[in-house]
Amino acid sequence: MNVPLEQWETPYYAVIFTSTRTEGDQGYGKMADKMVEMAEQQPGYLGIESYRNADGVGVTISYWRDLEAIRNWKGNPVHGLAQKQGKEQWYAQYSVKICKVERAYSFET
Amino acid sequence: MNVPLEQWETPYYAVIFTSTRTEGDQGYGKMADKMVEMAEQQPGYLGIESYRNADGVGVTISYWRDLEAIRNWKGNPVHGLAQKQGKEQWYAQYSVKICKVERAYSFET
Repeated sequence: MNVPLEQWETPYYAVIFTSTRTEGDQGYGKMADKMVEMAEQQPGYLGIESYRNADGVGVTISYWRDLEAIRNWKGNPVHGLAQKQGKEQWYAQYSVKICKVERAYSFET
Repeated sequence: MNVPLEQWETPYYAVIFTSTRTEGDQGYGKMADKMVEMAEQQPGYLGIESYRNADGVGVTISYWRDLEAIRNWKGNPVHGLAQKQGKEQWYAQYSVKICKVERAYSFET
């Protein structure tokens, strides 16, 4: 995977989802893949990137055209089941930040 | 390291710095530590978190009270030298996104 260097027109939105995973997979990997596949189909979806350190702490940042797109995805019933299981099984803790991306630039050698 | 669960008063700002590292350390680790130490001393600094996948792609997200704090840190002369060396040696590519955090919430078991 490379850094997403797409230059989407600003402003757009980012959801920073930082999390600490519980031990073991417990079906997490499969569900995470499914959620990415589903998110990619949502109206207003722009992109996604995920990173995790060896200690189980990581972040997924998803990018969206507007707040309505984020609300729709948050309220998606299948995504809702994943969120429920996330609280019960997969995450020891998480934080969510809804951000308006005001400016973006990139560099490539 | 744990997820930063601080609830800073919104709105505040996030700088999402996504990067692909070149091979080898080349003094990067030492400079990265120094930059975090220096950032923590800046007026308007709130917090920082970093994640990197095994393939060398990662993200550092720093949090700031306002745009002025971000501008001041970007224009810091010592940080400027690190930015220059980053382009020349440490990063194959990077992208920077300046974001206004409008809403935040967290969950802990």
